[in-house]
Amino acid sequence: MSNKCWKLKASRLADRTRNYIREVVEDLDLEPNPDKPLISLSLGDPTVFGNLKPPIEVVEAIKESAESYRHNGYTNSIGYEEARAAVAKYSSTDNIEVKPEDVILCSGSSCALDVSISGLADPGHNILIPHPGFPLYKTLAEGLGIKTKTYKLIPEKSWEVDLYDLESQIDDETAAIVVNNPSNPCGSVYSAQHLQDIVQIASKNCVPIIADEIYEHMVFPGEKYYPIAGFSKDVPILSCSGLTKRFMIPGWRMGWIVIHDRNGLLGNGVRKGLCRLTQRILGSSTLIQGAIPKILQNTPQSFYEETILLLQKHAQIMYSLLSKVDGLHPVMPQGAMYMMVRIDMARFPMFSSTLDFVKQLMTEESIFCLPGECFNLACYMRLVLTLPEDMLCEACRRISEFCHRHYKLQIICPSIIDEYDSRFGYVIQTGDNQRTTTRGTTNTA
Amino acid sequence: MSNKCWKLKASRLADRTRNYIREVVEDLDLEPNPDKPLISLSLGDPTVFGNLKPPIEVVEAIKESAESYRHNGYTNSIGYEEARAAVAKYSSTDNIEVKPEDVILCSGSSCALDVSISGLADPGHNILIPHPGFPLYKTLAEGLGIKTKTYKLIPEKSWEVDLYDLESQIDDETAAIVVNNPSNPCGSVYSAQHLQDIVQIASKNCVPIIADEIYEHMVFPGEKYYPIAGFSKDVPILSCSGLTKRFMIPGWRMGWIVIHDRNGLLGNGVRKGLCRLTQRILGSSTLIQGAIPKILQNTPQSFYEETILLLQKHAQIMYSLLSKVDGLHPVMPQGAMYMMVRIDMARFPMFSSTLDFVKQLMTEESIFCLPGECFNLACYMRLVLTLPEDMLCEACRRISEFCHRHYKLQIICPSIIDEYDSRFGYVIQTGDNQRTTTRGTTNTA
Repeated sequence: MSNKCWKLKASRLADRTRNYIREVVEDLDLEPNPDKPLISLSLGDPTVFGNLKPPIEVVEAIKESAESYRHNGYTNSIGYEEARAAVAKYSSTDNIEVKPEDVILCSGSSCALDVSISGLADPGHNILIPHPGFPLYKTLAEGLGIKTKTYKLIPEKSWEVDLYDLESQIDDETAAIVVNNPSNPCGSVYSAQHLQDIVQIASKNCVPIIADEIYEHMVFPGEKYYPIAGFSKDVPILSCSGLTKRFMIPGWRMGWIVIHDRNGLLGNGVRKGLCRLTQRILGSSTLIQGAIPKILQNTPQSFYEETILLLQKHAQIMYSLLSKVDGLHPVMPQGAMYMMVRIDMARFPMFSSTLDFVKQLMTEESIFCLPGECFNLACYMRLVLTLPEDMLCEACRRISEFCHRHYKLQIICPSIIDEYDSRFGYVIQTGDNQRTTTRGTTNTA
Repeated sequence: MSNKCWKLKASRLADRTRNYIREVVEDLDLEPNPDKPLISLSLGDPTVFGNLKPPIEVVEAIKESAESYRHNGYTNSIGYEEARAAVAKYSSTDNIEVKPEDVILCSGSSCALDVSISGLADPGHNILIPHPGFPLYKTLAEGLGIKTKTYKLIPEKSWEVDLYDLESQIDDETAAIVVNNPSNPCGSVYSAQHLQDIVQIASKNCVPIIADEIYEHMVFPGEKYYPIAGFSKDVPILSCSGLTKRFMIPGWRMGWIVIHDRNGLLGNGVRKGLCRLTQRILGSSTLIQGAIPKILQNTPQSFYEETILLLQKHAQIMYSLLSKVDGLHPVMPQGAMYMMVRIDMARFPMFSSTLDFVKQLMTEESIFCLPGECFNLACYMRLVLTLPEDMLCEACRRISEFCHRHYKLQIICPSIIDEYDSRFGYVIQTGDNQRTTTRGTTNTA
């Protein structure tokens, strides 16, 4: 035994647990322009600028929870009955009845997704995830040896699911379809018909749905939010949500799974399995659980309305300003906190990729937007809508100047063509200012 | 595709995630005596009776954190720099220097153990865990396909590790040794020499240590607590602790890993791996992280001293009362919150096992103690020290009456002999009131 030596390395789980956004961003090796104050439009954290705060009712509820001395001890790892009952009531609608026993509290909505994915899928199984989409699904799945397959969203149809592509991805090893509505990064909000179409595919193929609904209700006036569970007659749906975004407390880590299983297809096995998984870390913070009933009950409707009006206003301002910028094509969101902006990379031939574009935007203008590669979609960047209006306008002004500075009417860099084609189905003909899509539409640039 | 059918079952991870205490207890199908109020000495939750509360400084710190509006957003998944610096200072001693970069905040100390185990070990590896010991190590490991091997603790030597047995369990697949000091369920506190001996074995065999030190500092007057890391010149040690027990807020889920790695043997690989694992659920509650500096700084020494004096007093009362009970042999703890009581099962021949004993104690006296099977050790039961003194005395009184009622001087049930032998090395000779141990000691019963 004396000839042993130290050979320590990270486990495979640790090695395979990747933060795809961080990897992309770290490789960029960003340096802002020291002469311009940094404005970051990258963080999906509504509180970071200080203009968006939780309602006072949240603060009051937590103080009350702490002062009661009733929420300090262990409880059932799925959460207090009272808190689950409050979430059940909050999640019920005219056609969806949620009972407390359908609710599992988790340490954040990321934890809710972790429990859902790891509760349904084994290593070797796959889950279908949207493309573009939030990279955490991949992080959670692939760490555990669960594969991911992507299904396309259609930018020209407000990021609706390409239903044909979705169905074609399903195979015998598909354990679940992840549906994110309203969406990060797209800000899309699906119609009743579209949600019904998605559910129908799941039903036909006997695949359950994991619904990432963390932006539930956060839809602009004129849009309507539908929980996808309302369209399922048989498909079991694990809806993941929480206090995170709507209540402006993402760091507090209070999320939940609502189990929708009208026909009992999950059976006791899956339900109990999900509960068992919460026992690994003994559940979420009881202090915050203790505040849930008051938070959900007392937060006034006006808080939600003011928040969403502000986000809509910011989206409109940003859309209006960036639409005027040659080479940029913002896609107006319908909810959530983000806007995707397509970059006509052919018009910026000095940049070899979206990554390069974003890096240079930072270098020259101290503006940071997440490149679409973070969401597996080049030639786009994601901007957040949550920053204060004056910063948002300043950011758009600098983006505009940057684009103006680098915009080229004629295409001089053939290498851009191939990249463009593989992303969007366009084939660009050099020299004649004509652009032909592989779908047969011809536009004059 | 129309001939598909629903075949949903829990994942293997969910299936393999077992709560060993719950399984034992649920099978008991306990029913208290309706004529006697229930007194449960089973829960390792110091707050459950209301007599033990967190210090006011904890409540003040949380309120301040909430009112500041500075701790609502996302942060680095390993935790705020400020909070980690506070934990680093709290964890440093004269011969252990902890820096903020050595600290990883987790959603409870169970999460800290989860990250440590799953960060060091792959499926197929094994970790060595104490016997008797806290069952969560097994739950966390075996869910992920990591095996557990147990090493014995010696009851007659205040539950010290059987060093020979520990070393004999190490093989090429051993990824870590879990050491729990002070101990749950035993309440043992190891001496400096003993901790050094354990570390020496780890060093000789090049195996890192996961130190479950959640009861750190909770040692009775006259005893001394030593962090095991102080004895390591080379062995990397992941010390898991948190606010849970010492601050009486187990439900809040605020734990941490302190990485001790004097010689850098973990390398960047393991450290980064541990950090990556925290990204799965994006870390612990920022609200509570925001309160950590004040909690650690402001909680007065008197709070710790009063708590430990109370626990010691309860241990002394319980030891004194139960020592007088024929058939029971309490083992005086040296810290933490528990006492193990050996049951001379040969004197209770009407009970086929400790489980049966504990069940009947509940049925007749409405007293519930955890059977040793929960910790993989029959013929013992674990009692908590945290209940109010009057309840504790009443509980001991009822246990005494129960034992008196069922105690048999002569052994009439041969089947008890085998069980006793396999657990404790005793061979009981019937009919002559003599007892011979397999270690050669003869006692007259």
